[in-house]
Amino acid sequence: MSRVYNFSAGPSVLPEPVLETAAEEMLDYRGTGTSVMEMSHRSPAFKDIIDSAEALIRELMGIPEDYAVLFLQGGASCQFAMVPLNLMTGSGRADYVNTGAWSKKAIAEAKRYGTVNVVASSEGKTFSYIPELTRDMFDPEADYVHITSNNTIYGTRYAQLPETGEVPLVADMSSNILSQEYDVRKFGCIYAGAQKNIGPAGVTVVVIRKDLIGNARDITPTMFNYQTHAKAGSLFNTPPCYSIYIAKLVFEWVKKLGGITAIQAINEEKAALVYAFLDNSPLFSATVEPRDRSIMNIPFVLPTDDLNAEFISGAANRGMINLKGHRSVGGMRASIYNAMPRKGVVALVEYMKNFEIENS
Amino acid sequence: MSRVYNFSAGPSVLPEPVLETAAEEMLDYRGTGTSVMEMSHRSPAFKDIIDSAEALIRELMGIPEDYAVLFLQGGASCQFAMVPLNLMTGSGRADYVNTGAWSKKAIAEAKRYGTVNVVASSEGKTFSYIPELTRDMFDPEADYVHITSNNTIYGTRYAQLPETGEVPLVADMSSNILSQEYDVRKFGCIYAGAQKNIGPAGVTVVVIRKDLIGNARDITPTMFNYQTHAKAGSLFNTPPCYSIYIAKLVFEWVKKLGGITAIQAINEEKAALVYAFLDNSPLFSATVEPRDRSIMNIPFVLPTDDLNAEFISGAANRGMINLKGHRSVGGMRASIYNAMPRKGVVALVEYMKNFEIENS
Repeated sequence: MSRVYNFSAGPSVLPEPVLETAAEEMLDYRGTGTSVMEMSHRSPAFKDIIDSAEALIRELMGIPEDYAVLFLQGGASCQFAMVPLNLMTGSGRADYVNTGAWSKKAIAEAKRYGTVNVVASSEGKTFSYIPELTRDMFDPEADYVHITSNNTIYGTRYAQLPETGEVPLVADMSSNILSQEYDVRKFGCIYAGAQKNIGPAGVTVVVIRKDLIGNARDITPTMFNYQTHAKAGSLFNTPPCYSIYIAKLVFEWVKKLGGITAIQAINEEKAALVYAFLDNSPLFSATVEPRDRSIMNIPFVLPTDDLNAEFISGAANRGMINLKGHRSVGGMRASIYNAMPRKGVVALVEYMKNFEIENS
Repeated sequence: MSRVYNFSAGPSVLPEPVLETAAEEMLDYRGTGTSVMEMSHRSPAFKDIIDSAEALIRELMGIPEDYAVLFLQGGASCQFAMVPLNLMTGSGRADYVNTGAWSKKAIAEAKRYGTVNVVASSEGKTFSYIPELTRDMFDPEADYVHITSNNTIYGTRYAQLPETGEVPLVADMSSNILSQEYDVRKFGCIYAGAQKNIGPAGVTVVVIRKDLIGNARDITPTMFNYQTHAKAGSLFNTPPCYSIYIAKLVFEWVKKLGGITAIQAINEEKAALVYAFLDNSPLFSATVEPRDRSIMNIPFVLPTDDLNAEFISGAANRGMINLKGHRSVGGMRASIYNAMPRKGVVALVEYMKNFEIENS
């Protein structure tokens, strides 16, 4: 078996020890005589898995008791509707910051359920930075302020969170949850599709302050009401059991590495290896302003489309795949999530150096 | 490793060869150097998986070209809202048949979006039969008629489908899809959570006549609109890739067995082994009228709660698990889905015989 370095933006690389455990336990989970896929979601064995998953993410992220942790389905795309259906029910107004394709989708969906005020946007410069946000820009009567904490496509990240006062901050954290320390208390709600730093596609984690639950609009489908799932401990209906099991294994892996503090240091060092090279290269360029650079997704470009194509195909020949950038940015994008090993990043930078020499 | 016979109602037993393949391919799917969990849903390798899964289920069920096949998330519980949001948009009325707990949930959710007429119910007799349905019972102006083709908890199944004329028939087929032949043309829409006969929890299959798509109510969340997914070939957002992969392996397994005709014969024979014993037993009793008996879920009872408990615990000691009946029926329930091997059913009947001798 020959594993590649997979720089996919998502679904993306998972820790090898997690996959090894999953393979080993596939036909017989710890003496139960069944696969986790075959277990009743009401069984003690699965109850232990989902309870452990919740306890682990609470520990890793420091989630206080007055926040619920929900394991849902449907990805961030479902949250784009669930957030307004559940939270845009006071003044009926919400502030959104437009920092990329996913923000735009969140905005478009929210507009269907209330009044959306786009307080700032970086669209004019291909979303290559995070707009400055000051407290006076936010509507004090808004039901919430929505941000995308890390922008997968454009490679930007909020270097600091906006100050929203009493207005709950809601974050789509799909592409950088568990990658760096955040004070959960600064948020009313955090949501994340699993397929970057948590586990396989098919489970969505929602962390929400409990007092924000219970005010959904009448038209809200039962399955889109946070209260449905909060009341039932994410077991209102059959949850995506196997995906939750893999998430639990990933949480254990993060904890074993030393938790978020440790993984943040690793991530920052990995990202610095790439950015340092880019900033000193006469051939390659980073596309994002230094202050707002993501440590998860690094877009970069070569001077011509031909060189971009040559770089990507050469990388694939060297076992480094999925480096093609999103069409809206072009060039390349290296997604270096938690599970991308440092040596994968080193191999990439090594290849970039050689490519530069050969093409200078 | 010692596998048990798992009679769980769902999530439930999967074919062992499927689990073996999944374990083997966990770290390197067919030379890609990645797990299926790590693949971009836009990659050629995953495109091949989802396309194959669709082609296989089309072939197995004989799904005509004018029906869409969608791989969604959220289980039947999401369909309880999606069906009325998408289809109850003509007269705003729909007919529902109440044959159990899941029908009731479907009815309750549909009532939130239109006028529901419960045309018949077997609730008065603990849902132990399927009501007689004649065409004159249905509203010719209804947007659809909704049935639950197999009732997991009560062990009933429609021996024949109701005649609804031009009104589309919608079926929750979660617990007997792929277990017997159905003429898809008799349905407007079929939906099924995967966790019985398709694969792991976390993917939902929807088979829907294409002309029924595109009339969703304005308030419908984008992710709850069938059109969103039909237009995008189930790739509007990241689908539950790994669950779809396992489903594809299950479809291949069914095909290799000889398709639905073959598996129906096996299922009928397995069920007949249990029912024949029950009908001749002085100690055990079946709870469902012969005409309406499910070949997937077989509830049965002993004369006392003590005997029920003794039977269940004795079964577990013999490697036969999850035989406890649902609390609303009591006693036992043997769920013998496609993947339950015949020898599992033989072992169960053997144990029942011995239990009868010891307790007579």
